[in-house]
Amino acid sequence: MIAEQRLRDFTVKVFKAIGCSDTDADLAADVLLAADLRGIDSHGVARLSGYVRLWESGRLNPKPRVRVVHETPTTATVDGDGGLGLVTAPFAMDIAIEKARQFGSGWVAIRNSNHFGIAGYHALKAVAQEMIGYALTNASPLVAPTFSSERLLGTNPICYAFPAGSYPPVVVDMATSAAANGKLEIAERAGKRIPDGWVLDVEGQPTTDATAVKKGGALLPLGSDRDHGSHKGFGLSAIVDILSGVLSGANYGPWVPPFVAYLQPVAGQPGQGIGHFVGAMRVDGFRPVADFKANMDQWITRFKHAKRVDERQSVIIPGEPEYEAALDRQKNGIPLVEAVQEDLNKLASKLGVDLL
Amino acid sequence: MIAEQRLRDFTVKVFKAIGCSDTDADLAADVLLAADLRGIDSHGVARLSGYVRLWESGRLNPKPRVRVVHETPTTATVDGDGGLGLVTAPFAMDIAIEKARQFGSGWVAIRNSNHFGIAGYHALKAVAQEMIGYALTNASPLVAPTFSSERLLGTNPICYAFPAGSYPPVVVDMATSAAANGKLEIAERAGKRIPDGWVLDVEGQPTTDATAVKKGGALLPLGSDRDHGSHKGFGLSAIVDILSGVLSGANYGPWVPPFVAYLQPVAGQPGQGIGHFVGAMRVDGFRPVADFKANMDQWITRFKHAKRVDERQSVIIPGEPEYEAALDRQKNGIPLVEAVQEDLNKLASKLGVDLL
Repeated sequence: MIAEQRLRDFTVKVFKAIGCSDTDADLAADVLLAADLRGIDSHGVARLSGYVRLWESGRLNPKPRVRVVHETPTTATVDGDGGLGLVTAPFAMDIAIEKARQFGSGWVAIRNSNHFGIAGYHALKAVAQEMIGYALTNASPLVAPTFSSERLLGTNPICYAFPAGSYPPVVVDMATSAAANGKLEIAERAGKRIPDGWVLDVEGQPTTDATAVKKGGALLPLGSDRDHGSHKGFGLSAIVDILSGVLSGANYGPWVPPFVAYLQPVAGQPGQGIGHFVGAMRVDGFRPVADFKANMDQWITRFKHAKRVDERQSVIIPGEPEYEAALDRQKNGIPLVEAVQEDLNKLASKLGVDLL
Repeated sequence: MIAEQRLRDFTVKVFKAIGCSDTDADLAADVLLAADLRGIDSHGVARLSGYVRLWESGRLNPKPRVRVVHETPTTATVDGDGGLGLVTAPFAMDIAIEKARQFGSGWVAIRNSNHFGIAGYHALKAVAQEMIGYALTNASPLVAPTFSSERLLGTNPICYAFPAGSYPPVVVDMATSAAANGKLEIAERAGKRIPDGWVLDVEGQPTTDATAVKKGGALLPLGSDRDHGSHKGFGLSAIVDILSGVLSGANYGPWVPPFVAYLQPVAGQPGQGIGHFVGAMRVDGFRPVADFKANMDQWITRFKHAKRVDERQSVIIPGEPEYEAALDRQKNGIPLVEAVQEDLNKLASKLGVDLL
């Protein structure tokens, strides 16, 4: 266990060490810490050395001039200048929120960016203003569309966050693939096979080999196969790719640059960097906030108390486990697996930052 | 085969016979015919007698005073006054488009409505204006959330429609359940079992019985089970229910009134009727339309030519089969199965309309 503040201070120092401004380092650390606090360990400080390697390879601008390049009263496109998505996405969300404050809603597409952490962080910024938040990002290609074996889409997450009354916000924050890549790594380490319907091998055939994607295979879209609606998972991923990539002028499909520095972007990129899309809508643009929240509470209560298949397991309200994890970890600290702790300390040595 | 115009004229007459104005009858028929033309036969004139039965049972207002009850420059809530969703949703989409024309984007929640036909019809109205269209609706409960056996959600579709250049628009229009209810009926008629992962029986256990939902079971969310991401399908369905139902002041969850007239709405409804949510964003609110369309065409071309798992089956671009069906059916007519034709003629006799 490590105290939140200590991990936060460390993370800020690392971002400063690669040249981020004080403000940007604080912000980037806040996004990563939000993932660690919310129990989404794959998207927190475990990725810190990945961001640093991108910077080392010259593919990450630590001092970006993030700016609006196109605008209407409620829409905008932001150029991230090759900076951290951890910085460009909050910049864009602030614009969306300000537009929503003035006109009811605001929608910002971001190009020329990098990995933005958990989508939930960005969407929740809107919830803090009594708004509904929306956040999407495309990502480097790992997922094959239905009927293909080619990696053409990222795990392209979709997030909506809604304020509630006496309950925590409802936060749906989900990859549009059947399973996350991290689950394959866990199975591989445990020497286990994975369920059918998660991946294809390099020949495009179903497999339960946890190393199939590493060997050139692909993740499957949500729905797994045509019979179970994988065309729907493909469609959702396409929506995310088009709004994040095509609409912003970022890359899309197979051209999205990889997060890992050891893989080079493919040639002939049609856009700039990776793309995000964020939005905010005032709840009181539709009805009084108190009425909405009262109905949200009733919605949540009804679903929480739905008839169970297994008496030991209730329906999980999206966002609730993450909210509870954050309460616990703020108080009791964040568990870091040994491999991550070692990785962070190697990073510290390299960058001349105090060890964790 | 029946010519489009003949089926359209018939449908208009039926809507007029139940008291719709000329304008509303034309519009409602246009939405239903769009489904039949696009090959989504389950949502076209096959449902006409269902709408009429709702009217007979006093749960459909043929002369609604549809009106805006709450508004900001880019958001609005519409009260459908118990009218056809086929009429209230286009009314709302026109408002969203006008707001988008003025401010870049427009978002309208609709309450006190009924079934709105295919979501794609509404989203495509925006595409005709060089905008991105969005359409959601909740529906009567048939789907159980993950870990429950209770029907608490509709098949709650999500639709986004995007303009392209030389290709037809990309239209993702999908239920958030693993399979559509109509597929169960087809299997039942054929005396076949259904795949695992589509439904639960009344005890909450997996089954391949095509009649399980009729016997009190439930459809499963997209993803089918927890291992394959059914919590994501549940999350998507929740998004649709909250934006369509909670945000508009309509009913939500188990309180959404059934489409079929022989089932009564459950007591203690928290809102009015069923709910929809529609939106429009100007493409040129983000970047020049020509640039967007050129990149959309590249996106489509790349995915169409993706490496195939089976040489005979290419990747299907969302919306393309429906576009091609419409071209064919406009020219060659619409195939009506005998049962539907008989049903329509019974309706005609009852309402004093010329037989089809």
